[in-house]
Amino acid sequence: MTMHKPLREVAAALLVAVATAPAIADTTEERRRRGDAVIRSLNHGQPQQVLERMRQEFPFLADATEAYALGDVWSRPGLDSRTRQLAAVAAFAAIGQTAFMKVHAGYALNIGVSENELKEVIYMVTVPAGFPRAIAASQALSELFAERRSARPGGGRTSP
Amino acid sequence: MTMHKPLREVAAALLVAVATAPAIADTTEERRRRGDAVIRSLNHGQPQQVLERMRQEFPFLADATEAYALGDVWSRPGLDSRTRQLAAVAAFAAIGQTAFMKVHAGYALNIGVSENELKEVIYMVTVPAGFPRAIAASQALSELFAERRSARPGGGRTSP
Amino acid sequence: MTMHKPLREVAAALLVAVATAPAIADTTEERRRRGDAVIRSLNHGQPQQVLERMRQEFPFLADATEAYALGDVWSRPGLDSRTRQLAAVAAFAAIGQTAFMKVHAGYALNIGVSENELKEVIYMVTVPAGFPRAIAASQALSELFAERRSARPGGGRTSP
Amino acid sequence: MTMHKPLREVAAALLVAVATAPAIADTTEERRRRGDAVIRSLNHGQPQQVLERMRQEFPFLADATEAYALGDVWSRPGLDSRTRQLAAVAAFAAIGQTAFMKVHAGYALNIGVSENELKEVIYMVTVPAGFPRAIAASQALSELFAERRSARPGGGRTSP
Amino acid sequence: MTMHKPLREVAAALLVAVATAPAIADTTEERRRRGDAVIRSLNHGQPQQVLERMRQEFPFLADATEAYALGDVWSRPGLDSRTRQLAAVAAFAAIGQTAFMKVHAGYALNIGVSENELKEVIYMVTVPAGFPRAIAASQALSELFAERRSARPGGGRTSP
Amino acid sequence: MTMHKPLREVAAALLVAVATAPAIADTTEERRRRGDAVIRSLNHGQPQQVLERMRQEFPFLADATEAYALGDVWSRPGLDSRTRQLAAVAAFAAIGQTAFMKVHAGYALNIGVSENELKEVIYMVTVPAGFPRAIAASQALSELFAERRSARPGGGRTSP
Repeated sequence: MTMHKPLREVAAALLVAVATAPAIADTTEERRRRGDAVIRSLNHGQPQQVLERMRQEFPFLADATEAYALGDVWSRPGLDSRTRQLAAVAAFAAIGQTAFMKVHAGYALNIGVSENELKEVIYMVTVPAGFPRAIAASQALSELFAERRSARPGGGRTSP
Repeated sequence: MTMHKPLREVAAALLVAVATAPAIADTTEERRRRGDAVIRSLNHGQPQQVLERMRQEFPFLADATEAYALGDVWSRPGLDSRTRQLAAVAAFAAIGQTAFMKVHAGYALNIGVSENELKEVIYMVTVPAGFPRAIAASQALSELFAERRSARPGGGRTSP
Repeated sequence: MTMHKPLREVAAALLVAVATAPAIADTTEERRRRGDAVIRSLNHGQPQQVLERMRQEFPFLADATEAYALGDVWSRPGLDSRTRQLAAVAAFAAIGQTAFMKVHAGYALNIGVSENELKEVIYMVTVPAGFPRAIAASQALSELFAERRSARPGGGRTSP
Repeated sequence: MTMHKPLREVAAALLVAVATAPAIADTTEERRRRGDAVIRSLNHGQPQQVLERMRQEFPFLADATEAYALGDVWSRPGLDSRTRQLAAVAAFAAIGQTAFMKVHAGYALNIGVSENELKEVIYMVTVPAGFPRAIAASQALSELFAERRSARPGGGRTSP
Repeated sequence: MTMHKPLREVAAALLVAVATAPAIADTTEERRRRGDAVIRSLNHGQPQQVLERMRQEFPFLADATEAYALGDVWSRPGLDSRTRQLAAVAAFAAIGQTAFMKVHAGYALNIGVSENELKEVIYMVTVPAGFPRAIAASQALSELFAERRSARPGGGRTSP
Repeated sequence: MTMHKPLREVAAALLVAVATAPAIADTTEERRRRGDAVIRSLNHGQPQQVLERMRQEFPFLADATEAYALGDVWSRPGLDSRTRQLAAVAAFAAIGQTAFMKVHAGYALNIGVSENELKEVIYMVTVPAGFPRAIAASQALSELFAERRSARPGGGRTSP
């Protein structure tokens, strides 16, 4: 499954491209479909597990995450995906939301951001938000990097 | 003074290039000089007024901002300046530090980030940090854009 | 204009009633229209000035506030308007967003919440969020109450 | 013990009614007794375990919680218990205090608030405080609902 | 009025000494009196203006500040006043409550803390809470120091 | 190892004394050495484990913590160590960083601050930051006190 990564990424990117830009005539059904395409483009073609579990008991919250957060915001064309992911990682780390930071850092790795760039964003967070938030984020990144390495056949590093 | 912008930006970029990367043998004097070069590269060759005022009464805080925040963190080569500024704008907006966000959004414009990209980062902030923080940031950006337009001869827009 | 208040409130309530509940087939246009009806029902039939100003430069943020925050969330039928406004006032006060708290406290007064109930919510905020946030909220409420009194012919109190 | 719920709630409500309103002549002993009555009225007649554990090592903090938070604030008559609990749930969720939110959501269920109303408050929290805080709160609510169902004989839902 | 400072401080200290330690039999009236003595001991024998204004419209909040925050917490004998004020200044600065930090930094100066010690606390805040909060606190301290100097006959510095 | 505590503390204090005050000509190597001496003076002569683990994957963050946070800020002579630790405990507790608060409360105990003084700082935190943050801090302190008692031969209390 990890073999044809470039192909899968191209496919995912196409899904997003196909998903039309937000428009006033869009139905919520279309916005959710666009959000689903965004997640798959960031998540190796897979849906988001947390989102799917939330759907059972908190359907509105799952729909809002999918249609608004992903379908409306994350699908906007004015910012490239790399920059949006790095800015999101900075924002989640600065407000102390390390679990969300870890998810979005994973998406960033999936679309080609390097481990190094993620570390640099975390170093930067010491300035606006202090050392505890940067250190907590570094620990979540360490976990993420370790999970990725143990999940990969050779167990090596993805990027410097 | 606003005429030879491209030239000034090249000069500022050179200043940063000349500033050697952080090293264990660096003295605080060298780190501060590197921080000063970073500020000038982001600020049309000018020093930072707030920093200069702070130096009178809070010398350590001014030095720490210059040597650590700017000289150590902001001068690191692992992240391009555009991405660092957009990530910083996201972080400052997400934690509600709109005055700092405005300063760093201004630096972002100075190095070629478009108004549109800044708006997109702010739209994204609604998701991690809620609508009030994004709206406060949008108001600070509006002020910044207006100040820039009124400061320019023709008073037109810099970028879409 | 302040004379037929009961009538205006009934009319506003009807506007909301007419606005159909959120559905998967809703277009963003319909969601925005529903958001506009929500605001008018809370704001003596008037649109929200801040929202209108934001629309010029940050159209997506204005649309998201109208379509998502108001049209999707605030229009949900599962919570009565009084309880939602008091819970929103508690949330805005607890996170230190006093300007938003003031706006929503004003909406609360408009739909019949008493000044006293708003004060009680603010007293409660000392427990989860500490005294500075409750005191800041009390000062914003004082301003709101004063503005209301000076805007009214007799200048008296609305409610105990 | 879970059988005569209505009776127990009436008894608990009476305890609060009997507890006299705060007065300038109240001793701290009386304020603590009133706080104890408030907790029992919200907690099926039981004291609060966390509070009792805290009393050993942090007696002042336990006393302040009981006498000030519960005896002074939570016992005030100006707000009905349902509204105070829903406003408190909104405040705790908005500031990211999910453990406290869960306790107060449990009290809310105990005095007749429906699961649905709690969900609506959490949906609302996306607007002032962003998606991560609302999602964290939804997960704490899910745990609470599951604990309640597994504790009940039939294991069914309390309310829609 | 600024002439017999040492005498006034001794008198204020006596007021606190006379105020008996918190006890279970204390009435709220006694707790408020103790809170009033604490304020006067920190404020050159004067009451707190903000508190007095709050009393008109938010009597419970004023009473809670006086009886709980000042009468119960600030009057506790287990911590000397200097340490409590410096710890409070650190806490208020770290959470971004600069107006409250300024008030408590003023109390600290009144009881003999030096300007230098206040600056050191603010420098420390860069580590837990980041540079923006420390810089905002430094600006509030600058205002405080300037107000003190302009209020004094010679206009000189209080302490290094 | 816990036997010659007074001697070890004197030695650690000397290490700090030997470490020269921050100066403009200091190299980062010297600043890091000074930071290492600060940690050992607070930590019974031992290095900080968290810092050492961080060094593998986030070298800049470990260096910045050591050279800036400890070597520049914590080594400043303008504030005695007891006051700095108590102010830091207040700041970490107020912003909800309980893990960092626990580490710094442990350092405070190591240099002779009493358990009681730590409790008083936490009681104070209810006022600026609310009850949940103070209660969370009290639970972290309880863990710390218990760990210290179980690590000591007699298992008794260090200080009242």
